[in-house]
Amino acid sequence: MTAPRSSGPALAVVGATGAVGSVLLQILSQRADVWGDIRLIASPRSAGRVLAVRGEETEVIALTEDAFDGFGKGDIVLFLTPAEVSARWAPVVTARGAVVVDQSAAFREDPEVPLVVPEVNGHAVRIRPRGIVAGPDCVTAAMIATLGALHAEYGLADLAVSSYQAASAAGRAGSEALRRQLSLVAGSTLGEQTGDVRRAVGEDTGPFAAPLALNVVPWSGELREGGWSSHELAVRAETRRILGLESLPIAVTCVQVPVVTGHSLTVRARFEREVDAGHAREILEAAPGVVLVDDPEAGEFPTPADAAGTDPAWVGRVRGSLDDSRSLEFFVCADNLRKGAALNATQISELIAGEFA
Amino acid sequence: MTAPRSSGPALAVVGATGAVGSVLLQILSQRADVWGDIRLIASPRSAGRVLAVRGEETEVIALTEDAFDGFGKGDIVLFLTPAEVSARWAPVVTARGAVVVDQSAAFREDPEVPLVVPEVNGHAVRIRPRGIVAGPDCVTAAMIATLGALHAEYGLADLAVSSYQAASAAGRAGSEALRRQLSLVAGSTLGEQTGDVRRAVGEDTGPFAAPLALNVVPWSGELREGGWSSHELAVRAETRRILGLESLPIAVTCVQVPVVTGHSLTVRARFEREVDAGHAREILEAAPGVVLVDDPEAGEFPTPADAAGTDPAWVGRVRGSLDDSRSLEFFVCADNLRKGAALNATQISELIAGEFA
Repeated sequence: MTAPRSSGPALAVVGATGAVGSVLLQILSQRADVWGDIRLIASPRSAGRVLAVRGEETEVIALTEDAFDGFGKGDIVLFLTPAEVSARWAPVVTARGAVVVDQSAAFREDPEVPLVVPEVNGHAVRIRPRGIVAGPDCVTAAMIATLGALHAEYGLADLAVSSYQAASAAGRAGSEALRRQLSLVAGSTLGEQTGDVRRAVGEDTGPFAAPLALNVVPWSGELREGGWSSHELAVRAETRRILGLESLPIAVTCVQVPVVTGHSLTVRARFEREVDAGHAREILEAAPGVVLVDDPEAGEFPTPADAAGTDPAWVGRVRGSLDDSRSLEFFVCADNLRKGAALNATQISELIAGEFA
Repeated sequence: MTAPRSSGPALAVVGATGAVGSVLLQILSQRADVWGDIRLIASPRSAGRVLAVRGEETEVIALTEDAFDGFGKGDIVLFLTPAEVSARWAPVVTARGAVVVDQSAAFREDPEVPLVVPEVNGHAVRIRPRGIVAGPDCVTAAMIATLGALHAEYGLADLAVSSYQAASAAGRAGSEALRRQLSLVAGSTLGEQTGDVRRAVGEDTGPFAAPLALNVVPWSGELREGGWSSHELAVRAETRRILGLESLPIAVTCVQVPVVTGHSLTVRARFEREVDAGHAREILEAAPGVVLVDDPEAGEFPTPADAAGTDPAWVGRVRGSLDDSRSLEFFVCADNLRKGAALNATQISELIAGEFA
């Protein structure tokens, strides 16, 4: 552990050794340092590893009751863990008076837990009856800042979105499965016309419901009523919650693509008022957490490869509908590990730390 | 050339040596043989190559006036060529009285040239004032049979589609560029968080506007007014034409994905009448040229890897909207070289041959 620092709230990161955890440690090194102690916590299996935090070697400790010793009011514990781990350990932390920032799905639907993307509804972080604040799913996070900015101007009336989701959203197991599959199909004799990806990849599709190399997979999550996936319903519910539009009609299809990092979405948004694509571009250009890249003739449009490793949502291909003066279409990409997880959780934690400053 | 056959119209295939051409020759071997002579034609560069047609070795001849010697009324010349080649040579063929079936964009917007997908508007093939029949773009072709069947039952009122397009739609150059890029990124040290795909691939992105390996590219075609791509406008115009709905509102974003063969689309369709997802599944199950694969819990949903090398459009993820009793969402895949090009052109040619039988 690092030597205690004199100022700033203490921060604990639970799940520090995972894919999102290692991005979070990078982000902590890059941003203004508002923290006192930073404690790294992980499963007993990963305990004892030494990771660099703000340039100092820090030993990872095991997730036990003792791991939170010394944490109390004004301190923050950030969970980058599966939902069942968050659900089990968050109450242990809040009982000590510290605030939980949870990146899992455990509390996203709890009306007493605010679901926050700072650029859109940062104010919501202050009202947290359970002492817990949640960040959204990485697909929701990728598009919500663009929608929030446009909604404030035009009033959202209807949304149809399709995702192009990266493998690393399934953690290291996801990116490793994609790379393994790519090496298998690269060594095979696939022609242009054959459908032999399944044969080359075999049964071991990793966390995906079908081979992902040279393929797209229109399924993530579990089956819900009516043929919907839990992931699609989550994107819909979270978008409504963060925008404060509880009855917004949302069409959504979640599709996984063979990209390592960087979620993309196509969006058609219909508004209550008439939209002008030029003015919409100005709004997006000025929106916090959003970068407009929209000159396709010059090769300027967002791609996940360009968004990966960066903080903002990249938006482009902004077009006014040809049929409806109140509709807009666009394409948006964001790093699913950063804005989709580690960055958003850091931003929420900084907002809370600011309350106690 | 093969020995003349006694019966059936003669068929010439211009562009026989390309990616679509080689699929077409396979298809001719698999289907009922309605043809007399089959003549293979290509650019002078490819002339002299010998290809198997119906099990017989056939020499490819160069595209010149003489290449069409002996062709006249009742014969068919199928163009699998770039639009400028089709535009130049189609009139040479029609002047001889033979019918042109063109798979390029050259005539798709010509009101005197029917645009035909046999499962949807096969009747249109008979009225061809210029002696030319066109097949649609491969993205339109992938979804149109599902839309046609649902429209007949419910009446289409509004459409929002997003494409997941395969590299081979750009011909051999497309699939070769993707494979080259995949080998470059496989050899690089890309981590989960880095955006280094551009560095690994370099400037040579082939026919794509950005690197396609481990990436998605929301651009295909040329820039048109309002930020639209020519490809998006084509999908919109063709869908309206084939369905006979000249003012159907259509939102469309075309996106290329790192798949070799097999176009996919997410579709949200709003209808004039209320839809029931179960009944919609029955309609799709019975629709010609469509296969329903829709049991996601059992891993049954369409993927491009499974659609590649097959004739039908595979449709699944059929869901009734949660907000609107007149809307349906689904996911559809089809082989862009087969239903998207060679198969559809063959089906059109067979319809025309039937007129003279």
